[in-house]
Amino acid sequence: MVPHLTTALSGPLLTLERYILDSMSTIEHWMRGQWRDHEAPFYASVDLRNSGFKLAPVDTNLFPGGFNNLNPDFLPLCIQATTSAIEKICPDAQKLLIIPENHTRNTFYLQNVATLHLILRQAGLNVRIGSINPEVKAPIQMALSNGSHLLIEPVQRVGRRLVLPDFDPCAVLLNNDLSAGIPDILKDLDQWLLPPLQAGWSLRRKSVHFSHYDEVAGEFARLLDVDPWVINPYFNALDGVDFAAGKDQVELAETVNDILVKTRKKYKEYGIENRPFVIIKADAGTYGMGIMSVHDASEVVHLNRKQRNRMAVVKEGMKVSRVMVQEGVYTFENINEAVAEPVVYMMDHYVVGGFYRVHTSRGDDENLNAPGMHFVPLAFEAACCTPDPAACPEVLANRFYAYGVVARLALLAAAREIEGTRLDFQEMQVTG
Amino acid sequence: MVPHLTTALSGPLLTLERYILDSMSTIEHWMRGQWRDHEAPFYASVDLRNSGFKLAPVDTNLFPGGFNNLNPDFLPLCIQATTSAIEKICPDAQKLLIIPENHTRNTFYLQNVATLHLILRQAGLNVRIGSINPEVKAPIQMALSNGSHLLIEPVQRVGRRLVLPDFDPCAVLLNNDLSAGIPDILKDLDQWLLPPLQAGWSLRRKSVHFSHYDEVAGEFARLLDVDPWVINPYFNALDGVDFAAGKDQVELAETVNDILVKTRKKYKEYGIENRPFVIIKADAGTYGMGIMSVHDASEVVHLNRKQRNRMAVVKEGMKVSRVMVQEGVYTFENINEAVAEPVVYMMDHYVVGGFYRVHTSRGDDENLNAPGMHFVPLAFEAACCTPDPAACPEVLANRFYAYGVVARLALLAAAREIEGTRLDFQEMQVTG
Repeated sequence: MVPHLTTALSGPLLTLERYILDSMSTIEHWMRGQWRDHEAPFYASVDLRNSGFKLAPVDTNLFPGGFNNLNPDFLPLCIQATTSAIEKICPDAQKLLIIPENHTRNTFYLQNVATLHLILRQAGLNVRIGSINPEVKAPIQMALSNGSHLLIEPVQRVGRRLVLPDFDPCAVLLNNDLSAGIPDILKDLDQWLLPPLQAGWSLRRKSVHFSHYDEVAGEFARLLDVDPWVINPYFNALDGVDFAAGKDQVELAETVNDILVKTRKKYKEYGIENRPFVIIKADAGTYGMGIMSVHDASEVVHLNRKQRNRMAVVKEGMKVSRVMVQEGVYTFENINEAVAEPVVYMMDHYVVGGFYRVHTSRGDDENLNAPGMHFVPLAFEAACCTPDPAACPEVLANRFYAYGVVARLALLAAAREIEGTRLDFQEMQVTG
Repeated sequence: MVPHLTTALSGPLLTLERYILDSMSTIEHWMRGQWRDHEAPFYASVDLRNSGFKLAPVDTNLFPGGFNNLNPDFLPLCIQATTSAIEKICPDAQKLLIIPENHTRNTFYLQNVATLHLILRQAGLNVRIGSINPEVKAPIQMALSNGSHLLIEPVQRVGRRLVLPDFDPCAVLLNNDLSAGIPDILKDLDQWLLPPLQAGWSLRRKSVHFSHYDEVAGEFARLLDVDPWVINPYFNALDGVDFAAGKDQVELAETVNDILVKTRKKYKEYGIENRPFVIIKADAGTYGMGIMSVHDASEVVHLNRKQRNRMAVVKEGMKVSRVMVQEGVYTFENINEAVAEPVVYMMDHYVVGGFYRVHTSRGDDENLNAPGMHFVPLAFEAACCTPDPAACPEVLANRFYAYGVVARLALLAAAREIEGTRLDFQEMQVTG
């Protein structure tokens, strides 16, 4: 039922994919060592871009919101991985509270919460859903598109615990990315909080994540003896940017130019004839807001009012003052005329599935995860853990395995990032 | 494609299955605690019997030989569970040697080895297959029914390691149940050996396993507040039995009678109108040899020559002198006219699939795993980890979940059994 993707792969990436298949036992052995030293986040999704000459993560989400887009045939993988995660993080947990995003009127998002609810219940947890949206004052039965309902109840704080009537959970699972900051109701809880508060967008910085990814990609590239660039986009971060003021963005233009020059050099090295571009995005926050594609530094010097407004504010009205400039990665995967971008889902350190974001109205150098953009999700038709080293890299199961490997590199970067910010956060609490 | 099973369930079992569904979070929480205290075997399969009033394990195999019978859709679960097992038992392992049974001419068994080989490779191990059969003196390419081949090489011992040419494995996976005793080539290795030697049938005793199961079933029944009998068959073991001698088996008859009397009492308590029976089997060994079904103690007093011969010797010509007498559990699952018995597969402590042994020529009170009996394997069409507590227990996914729970109880018994024999075995090495 699911159409195959037509990709025209060649050059360095095909080499990388061949190396990945040939080095499976080296890679998995290395991964086992990494997961012994670093605790994987409870769950995550990673947006990848595949340009045929480069396969790289462009965003790592620690509050994944598309479990409903995964192939239902592979939900058992999610259940098994959940069991493993719970065992490692909070084995004593029996009751679990899911805290969804505040905008629970979104039908697609509600389906995600329903799927997550099902996975956690099937893993043997007693699960209820509680909203921290102050506007939710009474239980609401939200209608799902399949005709069933989802009960969302207002969370109450009692002492250092979040509770619902007759329900005192041992663990709280955040599916709310805390873009607006950490609300008081979540502070100083004595319950397990998954993921920890510092994984929220009010404290996370994309550039910190990609600094960790830079390290991880370097280690991995040395392991396989490949050029780290084929899995790692150039980037830089810039502080004190004021889009609203309407001043010339000279420093931003310089940063953009710097990345373009470095990328152009690499394109030349590999004989790639496409035009390099960069993506400018808010360093904190998600949801594809505050993002622009730029092919020339001059484009950012004088931004018009519309562009400035689009960049100045992200989700929950947070003002942007720090941006990340990242080498753009073309997505050359497509289905008929539509552009597609893979999103890989992980629970514990296992790849549990994924889907393609398919867009008919966007170019191959544009961000596909933007507000109001109704992409069509196309579930991966095979699991990401069934490579066939005897077959060629283009075989679907092998491509998905490579996606899973690169996604796990981003997951490992997130694990190290959370470890790092955990310390900072504790210091902040002591000194702040 | 797979026909549904027609089962007529009622009475205590339906109650048990309802209790299991209602207590999912209690059960999984309890299991997490158990797996924290006990190391699950690398892999295992458990034969269950479902009589509608009783759901119980009748055999726990620590060298499962039917991976080829599992639903290929759920192989990703096997791969993920393998990753987990390797991580816990031997995270440093990169190369793994599979040691299959010596009778590798059996096409069905070869398919099992091929499937296992694939699962381990997909979990990222570098895997080769080595035979310890002294008759295998050169590498053999064994033809598989799907047209591919499997290379089996003669294992060499170098110092305290098993090797193949250019292959020095970190771990050795036994898929050979060591019925004939522990060969010298496997003793005192400094490689990881999965499962450990004492899991082999030359040291294991069914009655020891079922003593542990007795304990586990008791704890579980207290947890759920149910009668342990609905998951636990009565049994007793008897030493010094000499079938070959042709003497009257008075002591055996007494043991049989004792079990029949206790079973009859339970049948009466639950209003069950079937005729109780017992299964007599060799206390060591597998493969359905040395097994008989008995409805009355008088049947065993004077055994005829054919019966004596059938009971006297098991696999690899081992003489039987110790037997286990176990309450027989009817199997009332059937497809059309054929009797079916579920076999549940586990890796690490995860249920990864299962199949039914379907027999057209056997009764519901007979053993379905006997030599020369070509049962038809019928793969479970759903995973065992996707229960729907809102639906009735008869729903396929819920029945499979209950199977998975009872199979894991037997797995837990095996884990405790191996812990116990580990000590005995070490003492034996010290004193012997």
